[in-house]
Amino acid sequence: MSEAAQTLDGWYCLHDFRSIDWTSWKKLPSDEREAAIQEFYTFLDKWDLMQQNKEGSYAFYSIVGQKADFMLMWLRPTMVELNEIETAFNKTKLAEYTIPAYSYVSVVELSNYLAGKSDEDPMENPHIKARLNPILPKTQYICFYPMDKRREGNDNWYMLSMEDRREMMKSHGMIGRSYAGKVKQIITGSVGFDDWEWGVTLFAEDVLQFKKLVYEMRFDEVSARYGEFGAFYVGALLNKERFSQMMTV
Amino acid sequence: MSEAAQTLDGWYCLHDFRSIDWTSWKKLPSDEREAAIQEFYTFLDKWDLMQQNKEGSYAFYSIVGQKADFMLMWLRPTMVELNEIETAFNKTKLAEYTIPAYSYVSVVELSNYLAGKSDEDPMENPHIKARLNPILPKTQYICFYPMDKRREGNDNWYMLSMEDRREMMKSHGMIGRSYAGKVKQIITGSVGFDDWEWGVTLFAEDVLQFKKLVYEMRFDEVSARYGEFGAFYVGALLNKERFSQMMTV
Amino acid sequence: MSEAAQTLDGWYCLHDFRSIDWTSWKKLPSDEREAAIQEFYTFLDKWDLMQQNKEGSYAFYSIVGQKADFMLMWLRPTMVELNEIETAFNKTKLAEYTIPAYSYVSVVELSNYLAGKSDEDPMENPHIKARLNPILPKTQYICFYPMDKRREGNDNWYMLSMEDRREMMKSHGMIGRSYAGKVKQIITGSVGFDDWEWGVTLFAEDVLQFKKLVYEMRFDEVSARYGEFGAFYVGALLNKERFSQMMTV
Amino acid sequence: MSEAAQTLDGWYCLHDFRSIDWTSWKKLPSDEREAAIQEFYTFLDKWDLMQQNKEGSYAFYSIVGQKADFMLMWLRPTMVELNEIETAFNKTKLAEYTIPAYSYVSVVELSNYLAGKSDEDPMENPHIKARLNPILPKTQYICFYPMDKRREGNDNWYMLSMEDRREMMKSHGMIGRSYAGKVKQIITGSVGFDDWEWGVTLFAEDVLQFKKLVYEMRFDEVSARYGEFGAFYVGALLNKERFSQMMTV
Amino acid sequence: MSEAAQTLDGWYCLHDFRSIDWTSWKKLPSDEREAAIQEFYTFLDKWDLMQQNKEGSYAFYSIVGQKADFMLMWLRPTMVELNEIETAFNKTKLAEYTIPAYSYVSVVELSNYLAGKSDEDPMENPHIKARLNPILPKTQYICFYPMDKRREGNDNWYMLSMEDRREMMKSHGMIGRSYAGKVKQIITGSVGFDDWEWGVTLFAEDVLQFKKLVYEMRFDEVSARYGEFGAFYVGALLNKERFSQMMTV
Repeated sequence: MSEAAQTLDGWYCLHDFRSIDWTSWKKLPSDEREAAIQEFYTFLDKWDLMQQNKEGSYAFYSIVGQKADFMLMWLRPTMVELNEIETAFNKTKLAEYTIPAYSYVSVVELSNYLAGKSDEDPMENPHIKARLNPILPKTQYICFYPMDKRREGNDNWYMLSMEDRREMMKSHGMIGRSYAGKVKQIITGSVGFDDWEWGVTLFAEDVLQFKKLVYEMRFDEVSARYGEFGAFYVGALLNKERFSQMMTV
Repeated sequence: MSEAAQTLDGWYCLHDFRSIDWTSWKKLPSDEREAAIQEFYTFLDKWDLMQQNKEGSYAFYSIVGQKADFMLMWLRPTMVELNEIETAFNKTKLAEYTIPAYSYVSVVELSNYLAGKSDEDPMENPHIKARLNPILPKTQYICFYPMDKRREGNDNWYMLSMEDRREMMKSHGMIGRSYAGKVKQIITGSVGFDDWEWGVTLFAEDVLQFKKLVYEMRFDEVSARYGEFGAFYVGALLNKERFSQMMTV
Repeated sequence: MSEAAQTLDGWYCLHDFRSIDWTSWKKLPSDEREAAIQEFYTFLDKWDLMQQNKEGSYAFYSIVGQKADFMLMWLRPTMVELNEIETAFNKTKLAEYTIPAYSYVSVVELSNYLAGKSDEDPMENPHIKARLNPILPKTQYICFYPMDKRREGNDNWYMLSMEDRREMMKSHGMIGRSYAGKVKQIITGSVGFDDWEWGVTLFAEDVLQFKKLVYEMRFDEVSARYGEFGAFYVGALLNKERFSQMMTV
Repeated sequence: MSEAAQTLDGWYCLHDFRSIDWTSWKKLPSDEREAAIQEFYTFLDKWDLMQQNKEGSYAFYSIVGQKADFMLMWLRPTMVELNEIETAFNKTKLAEYTIPAYSYVSVVELSNYLAGKSDEDPMENPHIKARLNPILPKTQYICFYPMDKRREGNDNWYMLSMEDRREMMKSHGMIGRSYAGKVKQIITGSVGFDDWEWGVTLFAEDVLQFKKLVYEMRFDEVSARYGEFGAFYVGALLNKERFSQMMTV
Repeated sequence: MSEAAQTLDGWYCLHDFRSIDWTSWKKLPSDEREAAIQEFYTFLDKWDLMQQNKEGSYAFYSIVGQKADFMLMWLRPTMVELNEIETAFNKTKLAEYTIPAYSYVSVVELSNYLAGKSDEDPMENPHIKARLNPILPKTQYICFYPMDKRREGNDNWYMLSMEDRREMMKSHGMIGRSYAGKVKQIITGSVGFDDWEWGVTLFAEDVLQFKKLVYEMRFDEVSARYGEFGAFYVGALLNKERFSQMMTV
């Protein structure tokens, strides 16, 4: 395979955004509402356990605005497992009171632009393995957006030389690194899996850092000339306590 | 952070547009309609009180045309509070008779293009603080639209020098200032939060001033070459009296 | 204000397109159907009376194809009145059997491209006043479409000089005038009010004249290089007799 | 009128695509299903009779894929008649079990690019009249798509000279003619009537000829540089026997 | 026909994507659910038998994410047969619990870019015939996406010479061949049949190979400059056992 297209790929990833059908939910008797929530919590418990066992990871956030009410993001070693999780969730009582809003299929990816040259097998490197199979942080806020590299007239990323692309990605990466400790970034590749080329999931305690990071990067040539961005979703951390409060009507 | 990307950010902002399900609303017994309205008014009262306490602000307008029937716009110190307001509103009786039409997530923003150079901490400047945490006016009319700066071929805002951008924004700002006293403008940044880069909310007693301002600006290079505009929403002021009248069937 | 952006503005304008929910309508007992129609006719009567009093105007047309079943177009001196008409219509029995299909918010506009230079106040000129506050004709056919002036690469209308724009608009206007007596044209401006910059409403006894006019204009530089067009709606005149026939099931 | 924009226009044309609500249809008692079909057949009979009388024409095809289940295409001397047909169809029992999928409003058109120069009134020419008021064939397959001529940067059809356009259309027409006997083509103009500039309806016994014709034309400059294409619909001939079989559940 | 546009065409192809209405499905009594599944299995059996008899082929996969829950892909000698299969499926009990999500109409196609020059009738070549009427593999994973060749400014595929196109397709084909044994690729042409020019269906045991293949190709000039891609669907193999498990609630 040409050097250009080499990536390291880790866990498969599914983002699942849902809106709540509040009118139907409110009509449900309170004991059935409680049962639906408890059934969902058995899933949360199972996903927590798998995460402790490093068999996968997940994130659970509310979403601000009408695009969705909450988002579940799952990481698993195989695509089939994602398919199973999604089907299992669709069969829950809670899912009957949700409306699918958006989803994204991808795989955790490290590009080769920033890779050191080495003979070692990168999958044997524990640092790289941890980045490919990451345990998602539980920061206060999350941000998700899909993106493409532009192929348009004179602004065609895929017609650039490897050197030019590497140079630009380096500068891009330096902006990202300047947010170390403030924003945790998970890049997932979705070429062949979903409608954009990458998904970007950002985690931060301070939601304003998403805006600062994305805006600063927009002046960087790699985004300014070559970035195409899809819809942006921003949300706040959920856990059992917060979700129970959210669903109490 | 590079100078280009510096902004001052204030209160977080959620615009929430809703259509009314008139057929269902009319089927509701009149005492239940009245109860739904009164429940909503306890929210209005609470938002009024918070506004008096400078803990946030809100606007409440009807929308002309089929895009929506009314709009609520909230400003709060944190994103989580916006999420809570929206969830609380979704649980009201009134919300059962509304259909989500559009929403926008952003944060009040002052760009650094027009900033004077100074050593003082701008957040200590009461004038700047008031602009970042604004109490929204209750003018007769409102206008909202989201926008981007273009990144296309030779018209790529983000590839311009800071000097060029500053120069153009200065001329742009001069048009805006020529409407002082006629149009009040709130700019909110949404990079990383929603699908466009900025939201623009205009307030005026004379609705025609929106057209004059936006049209005049369109000939200005910063809009003519670099502006991309989303959907426009225009509406008229609501208060308890007008809303009660609107909802009487 | 710069010369470029000067316009004369008259009555505010709302186009409201609706589809009929035929299945529900047919289920309604015939006396209730008749009552719904008669209630709607009290509105028609009121709008007719206001039109006689020069307090506004309206048009009422069926729409060909699935985009909508009929269209109401209202002109009023203030935006608030349009908002009230629309809300009042939404509360009618008939509205329960319609589905919103499209709407457009604008204001009758005369551009300054073709204006003679004069010291008189144009609003004192009865000819101009009649064009700004027009009584809509009752021709057999109507055509509506929204449009923008293009801002794209070398085809950027808003970067042209006033002279160039005036020259092109003059040639454009000459085509329009060659249809005098065949097509009546109402231009409404919607910058700041709706998603396109202008709405064009054409009235003709011979529907083919719409095609001839729009097609001939398309070869004119102002359309060929600078016109961007939205959806086109074409329809036939309705009145009480025709609407009653249309709604008889 | 400028030579460029001259066309000969014949019968008005409405394409109406519908999906079937199978679940509701299956719930209907079989005698009511049969009554709904028979009511629809009285329309078919009427349209057949009008076609025999040269008062119009129609086509009736199933559509492959989820875009629609069947398509009705009507030709009539006036636009008002199309509006009446559509309203009458909407009031049938069968229509209650269909969901509008797409429609297209246009008029049969002969461009003047290929016209011989002559002093005769083309409407007196029986060959031309037959092409303007065509009786639609009953081939096994149909294909419909709308299209525009591009106006984009250096590829702006409407800025070309009449000579250049005529030259290109001639070559285009030669491809079309090479399919004589295999594909029958009806061009309908929709400038001012619907969202694209033309509708193209193709009829063939061998469905593969649609692909061959459209693909071959795509390499022709007039399509390659100047063609913009909408959605494509392909379907198979329906008649009473086939439709009854299709609707039997 | 010009050499440029020559293709070899085989079986007609329909991709049919469906979402499951889980809420309604769960409400169905379990014996009726079982009956619905068994009825569907009689279709699967029939399609299997036809496949054994080389009268056609099919694929049956779940889809990951909210775009759809499962996909059926059918190959048949005639377009009418596809239309019949789809109608028959729409009448099943199972179909009542599905929601159409997307479909694609095309025909298996071999382009002439890579063809050897020969006097033989390619349809007499058993290798070519097998590629035109393929039996679809039952790999663990499937990937589907539609695509166009770009016609935009200087990047206009259809204005290139046959030689240039052939050269680029050769390099493209070499990437494809380097995935031999890992990814099986079925190209179907849809010019004149559906909204894009081609459908690409990929089959692999290792889902990651889809991403590697599509990403590597994206750097190839034919994709980088001339490829336009639609939505991507990825899914996992279904059979009776897996589908029964999936539908058990």
